[in-house]
Amino acid sequence: MPITTNFMGFFKGVDYWRWAKEVDVVSDDSYPDPADPDSPAYGAMVRDLVRSLGGGRPWILMEQASSAVNWRRRNAAKPAGMNRALSYQALGRGADGILYFQWRQSVAGAEKFHSGMLPHGGTETKTWREIEQLGGELAGLDRVRGTRVPADVAIVFDWDSWWSIEQEATPAEIPYVQHAFAWYRELHRRTVTVDFVAPSADLSRYRAVIVPSLFVATAEALGALDTYVRAGGRLLVTFQTGITDEDAHITAGGYLGVLAETLGVRVEEFAPPAGPDLAGTGLAPVPGTAFGGSLVSGGTGTLWSEYLHSEGADVIAAFEGGELDGWPAITAHSRGEGRAWYAATLPDPEAMAALLDAVLGDAGVSPVLPEPVAGVEAVRRGDSVFLVNHAPREARVTLAGAEHVLEPRGVAVVEVDAAD
Amino acid sequence: MPITTNFMGFFKGVDYWRWAKEVDVVSDDSYPDPADPDSPAYGAMVRDLVRSLGGGRPWILMEQASSAVNWRRRNAAKPAGMNRALSYQALGRGADGILYFQWRQSVAGAEKFHSGMLPHGGTETKTWREIEQLGGELAGLDRVRGTRVPADVAIVFDWDSWWSIEQEATPAEIPYVQHAFAWYRELHRRTVTVDFVAPSADLSRYRAVIVPSLFVATAEALGALDTYVRAGGRLLVTFQTGITDEDAHITAGGYLGVLAETLGVRVEEFAPPAGPDLAGTGLAPVPGTAFGGSLVSGGTGTLWSEYLHSEGADVIAAFEGGELDGWPAITAHSRGEGRAWYAATLPDPEAMAALLDAVLGDAGVSPVLPEPVAGVEAVRRGDSVFLVNHAPREARVTLAGAEHVLEPRGVAVVEVDAAD
Amino acid sequence: MPITTNFMGFFKGVDYWRWAKEVDVVSDDSYPDPADPDSPAYGAMVRDLVRSLGGGRPWILMEQASSAVNWRRRNAAKPAGMNRALSYQALGRGADGILYFQWRQSVAGAEKFHSGMLPHGGTETKTWREIEQLGGELAGLDRVRGTRVPADVAIVFDWDSWWSIEQEATPAEIPYVQHAFAWYRELHRRTVTVDFVAPSADLSRYRAVIVPSLFVATAEALGALDTYVRAGGRLLVTFQTGITDEDAHITAGGYLGVLAETLGVRVEEFAPPAGPDLAGTGLAPVPGTAFGGSLVSGGTGTLWSEYLHSEGADVIAAFEGGELDGWPAITAHSRGEGRAWYAATLPDPEAMAALLDAVLGDAGVSPVLPEPVAGVEAVRRGDSVFLVNHAPREARVTLAGAEHVLEPRGVAVVEVDAAD
Repeated sequence: MPITTNFMGFFKGVDYWRWAKEVDVVSDDSYPDPADPDSPAYGAMVRDLVRSLGGGRPWILMEQASSAVNWRRRNAAKPAGMNRALSYQALGRGADGILYFQWRQSVAGAEKFHSGMLPHGGTETKTWREIEQLGGELAGLDRVRGTRVPADVAIVFDWDSWWSIEQEATPAEIPYVQHAFAWYRELHRRTVTVDFVAPSADLSRYRAVIVPSLFVATAEALGALDTYVRAGGRLLVTFQTGITDEDAHITAGGYLGVLAETLGVRVEEFAPPAGPDLAGTGLAPVPGTAFGGSLVSGGTGTLWSEYLHSEGADVIAAFEGGELDGWPAITAHSRGEGRAWYAATLPDPEAMAALLDAVLGDAGVSPVLPEPVAGVEAVRRGDSVFLVNHAPREARVTLAGAEHVLEPRGVAVVEVDAAD
Repeated sequence: MPITTNFMGFFKGVDYWRWAKEVDVVSDDSYPDPADPDSPAYGAMVRDLVRSLGGGRPWILMEQASSAVNWRRRNAAKPAGMNRALSYQALGRGADGILYFQWRQSVAGAEKFHSGMLPHGGTETKTWREIEQLGGELAGLDRVRGTRVPADVAIVFDWDSWWSIEQEATPAEIPYVQHAFAWYRELHRRTVTVDFVAPSADLSRYRAVIVPSLFVATAEALGALDTYVRAGGRLLVTFQTGITDEDAHITAGGYLGVLAETLGVRVEEFAPPAGPDLAGTGLAPVPGTAFGGSLVSGGTGTLWSEYLHSEGADVIAAFEGGELDGWPAITAHSRGEGRAWYAATLPDPEAMAALLDAVLGDAGVSPVLPEPVAGVEAVRRGDSVFLVNHAPREARVTLAGAEHVLEPRGVAVVEVDAAD
Repeated sequence: MPITTNFMGFFKGVDYWRWAKEVDVVSDDSYPDPADPDSPAYGAMVRDLVRSLGGGRPWILMEQASSAVNWRRRNAAKPAGMNRALSYQALGRGADGILYFQWRQSVAGAEKFHSGMLPHGGTETKTWREIEQLGGELAGLDRVRGTRVPADVAIVFDWDSWWSIEQEATPAEIPYVQHAFAWYRELHRRTVTVDFVAPSADLSRYRAVIVPSLFVATAEALGALDTYVRAGGRLLVTFQTGITDEDAHITAGGYLGVLAETLGVRVEEFAPPAGPDLAGTGLAPVPGTAFGGSLVSGGTGTLWSEYLHSEGADVIAAFEGGELDGWPAITAHSRGEGRAWYAATLPDPEAMAALLDAVLGDAGVSPVLPEPVAGVEAVRRGDSVFLVNHAPREARVTLAGAEHVLEPRGVAVVEVDAAD
């Protein structure tokens, strides 16, 4: 019998890279907050992780809600179209099946306020009508089943690093998943498809690889990243990478191991923005991390800063003001056939966009849409491009020579040439 | 021997409707925060509940403090006059006895910083002087003893609903008592006297009945409310009423049971304002609940919104903007000899005043004072009207053809004709 | 063998006055937050306490960090110069030895992110260079070893009061150490050196004594303060002093005991600023404590207010507005050869400065520097004055007829005449 189990996206408790090897099909439970404007992008990140856990094979959306859940302190309803839009997002990002918890909304028990396909309100409801519509449409998408989602960019994601960086007695609170999401969100916005990969994975098929705070890194993993660059890869590494080995012992020689040579930098000392008022501020901008340079002028950083030396790297942004005035903030370094960037802070969106322009441009990564359309997600699966308009207003997208008008929270599946 | 025990106002732990049947006299401990500007109105609500628990019979203020308590994080002193004012409030709302904890402020033990009638500071103190004055005045109020407090309006209050709506796994956090208080406060401001009643109580003697979030309602209770309207009563029901029966099972057919016919509405789906920033905001105004219509233009709601259909009701306010744009917010519906209003959000004070104008006007409810005077509470007991000025400034009240000047935090007991 | 142990500055768990008697040398662990702008002043207060615990004898700085610690949620690095500056602060305030935790920054275990004298980054680091420099300089300071730190002002500090005032069921939350620090900070700013003393200590060698909230006071301690004033001392007492005796029994007769005569006041009742929004606001300014008078016009208070009667004292500031309008806020009273001030609130910095001008001027206290220099700490030890510039900018100080230029976070040790 084929075996699966309900994964739960970015779930801290278990290393899914290890568990996923033991299931025949990867499945996921997905309950984004309808009231959180980050839910579409974060949901896409979850689906890309789930697909990646199965090595790119089709997966199953095991549980989602037709509308509200019942376990938040205030549970938003999904507005008209959102359930359908998020279902298409799952299909576009590799799902071959979509299930719901629950069929008929229960009338008793702990989950009676969790929505169902058939709600308490019966069939004269937007929820039921949208479920009916979606069910009807799925029959027409047979050609998508079993196809794959191509990706040119990978993000290294590692449960050991997650666990370690969020322990007590570290240099500073770094919310590991939110940090990765800060990078993912900008890639999602520009319709660049991303795979997630484990450390030490074979990276040769990716044009660019991003490594957010790979706190725990074996010598093998650091070597694999260096090998990738020397062979022509484009690598972007952030602060708090290569800090300890797999035994939680400090990586000798001032962190980073062989990556110090890859990146052409040396980390002298950590200097996270801190102070009585900053505890628990998470990703909020913090003082003391302004920077500027050839990359961007007047940028600001978040979450981190440090005393960094360039040892051969180009300093494309330096900190400005405060104790770190003049110290490198972002660097770039050629190594073998490739090039490697290092970010000593988390750049604000504008600076991050400039940095990703440089990295992805150098890597020759093409997005699904040449220009992003506000609120519209685009992902290619097989010979189709899925367009999902998460915004509550109409959007127009030009693709494969035609203009596609998307209703508020509307979707379109556009066939494209296999060669496109 | 007559039996009593210290009730504690709106105490969540015990269903006082059931316990009150077992005591000969209802008693209450009352410790409002002198620094909370809501304390006078909230204190009045507590006293009305306590009186109602005893079926309107005189009750005993078993414990109050002459000044500060000792169990808040910061304990305000009662300013000059407040102890006397709140004591008269209790008398006006049905108390036949007033006691203090404690006589002589203790000099040792856990309660030594709880004020007493004789404070640490001795007899050369405002506390002692005010206690002396009050004791002297009480002797002159003999005619009040044993008399009743007439009320034309009732609020349905239910411990089952309180417990259920504040459980986990509900649609949203609804602070049950604070929600009831939002309605009570406006009634108190306009000197309308209120009784509290249990669900299924005989409502025939009230001109108007308000039902804030009667989350748990038996078919009998819903039937009693419908019967009340059909016989000519005026009923105002808010969101999250009739959601489950007494076994916590969803009320069949989309909530409300027979009240759906009374009100002429159908609830399709809950849509509480929500989002990462709204958890725990309680009664604070929330986005997405603007409304307008014939009742009021440019109102805003709090705490709740939902997808509501009118099925015969007049839509007197509709939501504006956001996902609920155009959906009914407040409705009115005639049924038999009566009329019933439904509020799908908690209106801001101005909109609430307009709604209560409509309900109370239609019901023919007369306040104790024709026009409210800022800071002044007025309640009738027997043939007297108690005027209590909670404000730290002079107030002037015209009553029974005469003008009464109330000192800052001053009081007056005015005899009126029995026929008034 | 001489015995010592690691004290930890203002540590609530143990009465160090009692423990210090049992050790031969007092030692301290000191980990100020490099990102907290109050750290220099607070650090000075800790060092003055530690010196005082040993009766003024030289003490040992048993543990400090070369840079960051690892146990805050975000751990700031010490910027260049701060480790040296804080080390000189310790020397200036009586330390004869300076040690670090840890020598070589560990590469494994729970404290691997706690800085060491030899950091992960090796010897090409600011941390190592500063440690080297400091070690070299200490050899030249031999003349300082064993000398004493003269102080004209004492602050009474009492663990019983700390424990009692921060218990539950008190009039209000008073953060005992932060309250003392509010007074200390202003003394530190004006380079007035302070000893800490236990209640009942011999005060005759001090020109002025400050008593912040000596909540628990024995009759003996109150008597010692009165004796001190009658013999010519200058005494400043704040609210919540003399509230209970050593058995936690209320001090008879309205608090303060014999100090009521010393101060010429009577406390009728406590009236701490309070209200639903004020819980947990600590030392933040609170409404209702404005004051003015001959001392200062338009002052504001924090943390406390009360109903206070002058019984012979000069009212130099009275509350303005609110319930306390016109009641005394700050008083002064001559007694025997001395004079005693009482503060019924914690004055804002400007009003506190005016009050300390009055007290210290009357007492004839001379600061180390005639005029404070922003960011510069000055303290005399033996025949030397230690100047420590905590600011990240140059400072100029005129002392002993010469101008001393201090680099950012720079220090100077200036020899002065023994007679100065």
